[in-house]
Amino acid sequence: MSAKRERLIYLPLGGAGEIGMNAYVYGYGPEGKERLILVDLGIAFPDMDTTPGVDVILPDIAWLKDRLDRLEAVFVTHGHEDHLGGVGHLYPQLKKPVYARKFTANLARRKLAEKGQDQNAVTTVGPWPETVEAGPFTVGFLPVSHSIPESAALVIDTPAGRIIHSGDFKLDAAPIVGEAFDPDLWAEAAKPGVLALVCDSTNVFSRHPGRSESQVAPNLVPLVKDATGMFVATTFASNVARLKSLADAGVAAGRSICLMGRAMRRMTEAASEEGLLNDFPRTVSPEDAASLPRENLMLIVTGSQGERRAASAQLSRGKYFGMEMKEGDTFLFSSKTIPGNEKEVARIMNNFSEMGVDVVTDDDGLYHVSGHANRPDLETVHGIVNPQTVIPMHGEHRHLREHAKLAESLGRTGVVAPNGTMLELSGNAPRVVDHVETGRTYLDGMALVGQFDGVVRDRLRMALNGHVVVALMIDDDDAVMEDTWVDIRGLPDAANGAPLADLMEQHLAGVLSRVDSRTAGDDEKLEDLITKGVRKVAQDEVGKRPEVTVLITRLTAD
Amino acid sequence: MSAKRERLIYLPLGGAGEIGMNAYVYGYGPEGKERLILVDLGIAFPDMDTTPGVDVILPDIAWLKDRLDRLEAVFVTHGHEDHLGGVGHLYPQLKKPVYARKFTANLARRKLAEKGQDQNAVTTVGPWPETVEAGPFTVGFLPVSHSIPESAALVIDTPAGRIIHSGDFKLDAAPIVGEAFDPDLWAEAAKPGVLALVCDSTNVFSRHPGRSESQVAPNLVPLVKDATGMFVATTFASNVARLKSLADAGVAAGRSICLMGRAMRRMTEAASEEGLLNDFPRTVSPEDAASLPRENLMLIVTGSQGERRAASAQLSRGKYFGMEMKEGDTFLFSSKTIPGNEKEVARIMNNFSEMGVDVVTDDDGLYHVSGHANRPDLETVHGIVNPQTVIPMHGEHRHLREHAKLAESLGRTGVVAPNGTMLELSGNAPRVVDHVETGRTYLDGMALVGQFDGVVRDRLRMALNGHVVVALMIDDDDAVMEDTWVDIRGLPDAANGAPLADLMEQHLAGVLSRVDSRTAGDDEKLEDLITKGVRKVAQDEVGKRPEVTVLITRLTAD
Repeated sequence: MSAKRERLIYLPLGGAGEIGMNAYVYGYGPEGKERLILVDLGIAFPDMDTTPGVDVILPDIAWLKDRLDRLEAVFVTHGHEDHLGGVGHLYPQLKKPVYARKFTANLARRKLAEKGQDQNAVTTVGPWPETVEAGPFTVGFLPVSHSIPESAALVIDTPAGRIIHSGDFKLDAAPIVGEAFDPDLWAEAAKPGVLALVCDSTNVFSRHPGRSESQVAPNLVPLVKDATGMFVATTFASNVARLKSLADAGVAAGRSICLMGRAMRRMTEAASEEGLLNDFPRTVSPEDAASLPRENLMLIVTGSQGERRAASAQLSRGKYFGMEMKEGDTFLFSSKTIPGNEKEVARIMNNFSEMGVDVVTDDDGLYHVSGHANRPDLETVHGIVNPQTVIPMHGEHRHLREHAKLAESLGRTGVVAPNGTMLELSGNAPRVVDHVETGRTYLDGMALVGQFDGVVRDRLRMALNGHVVVALMIDDDDAVMEDTWVDIRGLPDAANGAPLADLMEQHLAGVLSRVDSRTAGDDEKLEDLITKGVRKVAQDEVGKRPEVTVLITRLTAD
Repeated sequence: MSAKRERLIYLPLGGAGEIGMNAYVYGYGPEGKERLILVDLGIAFPDMDTTPGVDVILPDIAWLKDRLDRLEAVFVTHGHEDHLGGVGHLYPQLKKPVYARKFTANLARRKLAEKGQDQNAVTTVGPWPETVEAGPFTVGFLPVSHSIPESAALVIDTPAGRIIHSGDFKLDAAPIVGEAFDPDLWAEAAKPGVLALVCDSTNVFSRHPGRSESQVAPNLVPLVKDATGMFVATTFASNVARLKSLADAGVAAGRSICLMGRAMRRMTEAASEEGLLNDFPRTVSPEDAASLPRENLMLIVTGSQGERRAASAQLSRGKYFGMEMKEGDTFLFSSKTIPGNEKEVARIMNNFSEMGVDVVTDDDGLYHVSGHANRPDLETVHGIVNPQTVIPMHGEHRHLREHAKLAESLGRTGVVAPNGTMLELSGNAPRVVDHVETGRTYLDGMALVGQFDGVVRDRLRMALNGHVVVALMIDDDDAVMEDTWVDIRGLPDAANGAPLADLMEQHLAGVLSRVDSRTAGDDEKLEDLITKGVRKVAQDEVGKRPEVTVLITRLTAD
């Protein structure tokens, strides 16, 4: 009697093939009976091009939900939304223990509280070599520098060997807040031999070595000192180190510091509770700030990506909590613009330009540094960890491919495993053992909607083509009654100024007067006829092909 | 008896406060009776965020249409869509002579032909010192280098003095195709003294001197030579010089050249007709290309901005005219990504990555140069032209403001005059004399729609919120008849899986059963009641606030 062979599997459900909504499954056990852990459960952000009206994009966790009895726990590497943001939304479907370091755990508990879930589900774990047992896995949080405090790589021990899952990271020797990257500690973690390094790929195309957070502060000080009016800076609220550098520069210039925006308050509250802001300058409330001379004031605000409702955008449109930008003020983007947000950010810059506000950006590389390891840094980490296999994650397909090529060029196996690719890692060499259907789930208002449910597709079609609604009545003799009603949303009038609805009603009246009773008695035929008629008029008159809804009411003799 | 004082005015209708849809009016004569010329008539491109379904964005020329009897002519500086693209669409409303240099004129005639308009409206003008009289204006086309052949600044002589309107330009001493920037020629044009330089501002934030088109070719040659499979390159079709550099590099590597994409054919046809492609390598047709070994082939294709229907995007999705990309092929973006197009371009890169195609971009600045003057180049031109006033154009507000500050820092007057600002230039100093309402006109299918007509706003709202249609009947006693019908587009089901339309019908049945006959007899009251009821259900069940259309049919006793 031979026991079924046990194996170690890796399955990304999100984050491998995109930057956002990270969710990686590891499993160990007999095939089909592996015990599972989930690493990270993040969100992605919607856009008008593909997901209008959607609030948040989540990974589709159907595969996990079908195997809940085998899922041991969720481990969260750090507090960014693309790693932690899904915990509040999806915990109700998982109800499994969540492990994280203390700052991340604080944020995770807030997420659960917002959704009325049990905060006790979250357990704080100290830094490696402290570990947590989860089924066949032993997991430790290996500190690493990133653009948020207490980021961690995971040291995942399995009967088949050790995996290091990098999380997001950079090699920062002086990160201002939180731990520096410690090559000795990483070398120690790698010492027993590492089966696979599952590794952040975001900046694989950046050829120069990454820069330290500590390089920003010296540039901020003269900038703030030389400013005359109010000084306002925006950055990612979670970049606590940057908040401190900005605030320190403000204080050095004799300014009071005021933090504005909901995310800013939430982050600094959590950081303060976890003892990360002990030497942060004292701040003033927006109410008190309003009474200070503007040249003695520095605001640090949310909205570096141009988000419409964040503080930056509101200040660019007018008053925000009593504060208002004026000619002679300075506004600093201590941030980079994430691809896709360029137009929104430019809109804010132009609004400020119209007010006479001087806008300073990071175009010259002075006021921002990336939180991710660049190509030479990745080479360094490959060298320190010296894994048998590098599995690139946290990147679009082109990043994963380039990172795998980099690994191969350094003499290691590199495997491109996009979302849904199940790898077995326990054999002689990693190999693809399954392809799992993955996708996106949309939080739309309060509802969770599948990517292919058609809800968002219908909205996109109405946005592109407009919507024509036709209501008509059929009497109990299957005769079309007069007064067919056409209502139009989002279509232009005809070239001669005639309302398109009138032209459609006229056309339909003609069409319907010629309808025989067999067609009139068949909803589907009638709908088809009307849709064609409506589209013909739209095409002829305005060159559009609208969405059409036909409402047929049949009067029945009562 | 004193004649009314004559004046020289400048009025941007588009292009000043945005990059796109350039349209600048100059006028000379007694106030309110100035004779007018229009410089450029371009388009801007729509996006899902603000203009879903729109085909093209045009400047609103209502101000000009009210003064058509005073408009003498249209002058087009060069053939880019943001300067020439509106000519075909708006000529029918203007019917005025169009002047341009021969390549631009060729393209303008094609635009008119496409719209069935009279191509004889376009007159070709030779380079300055050749001039055209247009009322009180004498206009010459001063050659300048840009990223399309035969770009020109306009030398506009008026009784009040000379204006130089730069058009789009760079200071290129070796532009490969077309004239180099000739500082002596410009100095000669400026010699009599220049009242105002109206000047391109696109690259005012770029601090290094601009690079020559001729710097690209030496980098292309080794890249193409080292490639193994098929080599495909995309760039702006209008950049004829780049097409030549690419094709030359292909030939040097022993490859046959095939041009693909509609814009590519149109541009090279026009360039060829005007004698600009005399030393362009012989090309093969897509049909012949398909039969050549792929390592002997170079395709030059449209779609550098990720346009869904262009050749690049089609190749990234599968076959295009029998050609297909494969592992080992190379795809080069010899272009920059215009802000807003990042996601579309990345989608193509990732598709190619999945195919195993090596994608090369301009990230390292090797394979593209900008067509616009950088900050030091602008300083040079200010110096050569030495105008009394610099009026920045062709830029967002922040570009105009920065450019005006640059002019001031060099000891000249700089005036920020965004769209709709009428400046008098003939007084002692330029001053704002009027603000004119300007805006955007959307070409939507075949219809021209005003920016504030609500058509596109309605589409955006449906995209964000979904659309609920309610049809109900009122009998001739003002009683609501049963079977109120709710139809839904773009809204999710309720959390328990119940169709939202059913829940709304149930709710409305309750509401309507309690309606008194006064409300039932009043369409507006009834509509309001139903809209509220629908929105309440949507809010309670899915957290959305949909658009609502209510169709009330009243049965009348006949």
